[in-house]
Amino acid sequence: MVAGTGRERAADADALVDAALAGDRRALARILTAVENRTPVAELALRRLYPLAGAAHLVGITGPPGAGKSTLVAALIGAAREAGRAVAVVAVDPSSPITGGALLGDRVRMQSYATDGDVFIRSMAARGHAGGLASTSTAAAAVLDAAGFDLILLETVGTGQSEVEVAAAADTTVVLEAPEMGDEVQAIKAGLLEVADIVVVNKGDRPGAQRTASQLRAMLVAVGRAGGGVRNGAGARSPTAAPETPPRPRPKEPEVLVTTATTGDGIPELLQSLDRHRARGHEAGDTPARLARAEAQVWAILADRLRAELHVPANRETTDATIRQVAAHELDPFAAADQLLAGIRLENPSRR
Amino acid sequence: MVAGTGRERAADADALVDAALAGDRRALARILTAVENRTPVAELALRRLYPLAGAAHLVGITGPPGAGKSTLVAALIGAAREAGRAVAVVAVDPSSPITGGALLGDRVRMQSYATDGDVFIRSMAARGHAGGLASTSTAAAAVLDAAGFDLILLETVGTGQSEVEVAAAADTTVVLEAPEMGDEVQAIKAGLLEVADIVVVNKGDRPGAQRTASQLRAMLVAVGRAGGGVRNGAGARSPTAAPETPPRPRPKEPEVLVTTATTGDGIPELLQSLDRHRARGHEAGDTPARLARAEAQVWAILADRLRAELHVPANRETTDATIRQVAAHELDPFAAADQLLAGIRLENPSRR
Repeated sequence: MVAGTGRERAADADALVDAALAGDRRALARILTAVENRTPVAELALRRLYPLAGAAHLVGITGPPGAGKSTLVAALIGAAREAGRAVAVVAVDPSSPITGGALLGDRVRMQSYATDGDVFIRSMAARGHAGGLASTSTAAAAVLDAAGFDLILLETVGTGQSEVEVAAAADTTVVLEAPEMGDEVQAIKAGLLEVADIVVVNKGDRPGAQRTASQLRAMLVAVGRAGGGVRNGAGARSPTAAPETPPRPRPKEPEVLVTTATTGDGIPELLQSLDRHRARGHEAGDTPARLARAEAQVWAILADRLRAELHVPANRETTDATIRQVAAHELDPFAAADQLLAGIRLENPSRR
Repeated sequence: MVAGTGRERAADADALVDAALAGDRRALARILTAVENRTPVAELALRRLYPLAGAAHLVGITGPPGAGKSTLVAALIGAAREAGRAVAVVAVDPSSPITGGALLGDRVRMQSYATDGDVFIRSMAARGHAGGLASTSTAAAAVLDAAGFDLILLETVGTGQSEVEVAAAADTTVVLEAPEMGDEVQAIKAGLLEVADIVVVNKGDRPGAQRTASQLRAMLVAVGRAGGGVRNGAGARSPTAAPETPPRPRPKEPEVLVTTATTGDGIPELLQSLDRHRARGHEAGDTPARLARAEAQVWAILADRLRAELHVPANRETTDATIRQVAAHELDPFAAADQLLAGIRLENPSRR
């Protein structure tokens, strides 16, 4: 690294951070782009912003496509704004109408916030290596938290493991269901319910909504009685935990609410439910979600350091040759990993 | 580690490998369970099996729920068996009827292979930390490859990034679409197409199937002309590549086929298309997919070593205390990572 470049970068990052903290939304957006692209500016900015974060309520909202997540997010923004809270949305959903632009109604609804400085909406590409998505979203949330947003909504589609992990890394995880969904979606639901702190049956004006809610309540009670295996600490919530970690018992069965996001029915109750869940977390001290999130962030940085080390000019040739041997089945991947580890030394890059 | 335990484990693993190579399917299943659970037996078994693998054709099959992946897989098994090939299926799909058991028709179809020793079907849980799924599936495929299966089908649901990465790590990636799917699924489709070597419009007996195929062909040509940015080497296919890696140009636009898996229409043509794609890969020498797969496996092992190191008894307390400081926002995650790196030394565990 050329020292001058590093110093310029630091000056850039400092200026962006100062501007973002002063309320400049374009500077905020640029920091989030840096976080998304994992540039050096992101690290510099996060090192300053992270200590200022921690006050926001981070809410994950996930569910299958078609459950009405984006409409619910739009309705929640409205309710939170009425309560005087600044709201930021990070949408990690390739099919999200908020960022993908499929449903005109939602876009119109969102555009009504375009001139409201206390609403900030951002999409994050569901790209890059697996595992990076959760840490990138968490880092983005920390930036928005430091910038003074009270409520941060992480919207993800609840179909892939990574996307579920993003939502599950929040303080409070809301899982959306729609009444009368098909069999395949039902199968996905079981996995989703494991991460839910609050379950919302949306499209409450459709026939079957109350019945779906009753079925979900019965299911959650049954699973709860079966012995706390619902929320698996070694899985979604604790990325660096050793595989032996026993499943963390669920502290309380999730509330099941019925909403109709298009009309706003049930939205104030959802906001209250979010507040109740958060208050319980505060009583419990460091919530497990916060610890898991911290772990995921540190782990992602450690993994980045290791990854980068394998690709520095001095190591790149050895790394590539080793990978080619594995691809040709001349070397097993364990032997390859050991050879690479023997050849590299992980260090704080600033000490080089 | 107690030496005796280690020796017993090695003897266990050796016996399992010997039995699996001799055709014992229960031993094979036990090795796959060890791989799925990342036990020490898995490493011991893989170290022996990996050099024996490399001959099989690894085919990823992905697509949105409802496109008929499992029916297609069942039909492909039939066609491949008729051609005298031994077929293994690894299903990484929580909604898969093959393993999840939703559609009776498919289960009946699969049961007709229950007594066929040259068909092996295995589900893998889509669990564990993100990024582990691709390497676990790849390791499972290597075991099945070493055990003599000619064609290995990796079935995943194409909705989450991890699941798409699993399919994209195959030699040949087949993306399924069904005609006339909803808008939200169309949005997902664009991401899926980026990893496709072959696109299959299934449910060809439905109205609109040929039109969907024509639309897809036009879309693929347009994207191809736009400059090879379709298949992003830095994304799904190259998990350890530095972020600067330029997008790899797509070698050839994917073929678009129409099948009706329920009747078998188009299935022989799909098998031929798979063979053609593989032959092209062979001509090209080490295919990018093989290199990416090798990289992903080595990377997963390196990450496991790092993860394990942070949780050995000597480091665990420091790790936990550091994570708690980050959770309390007393320490930023970069400083935490550097503190942890300064305190640990990565080594081959056998050298301890």
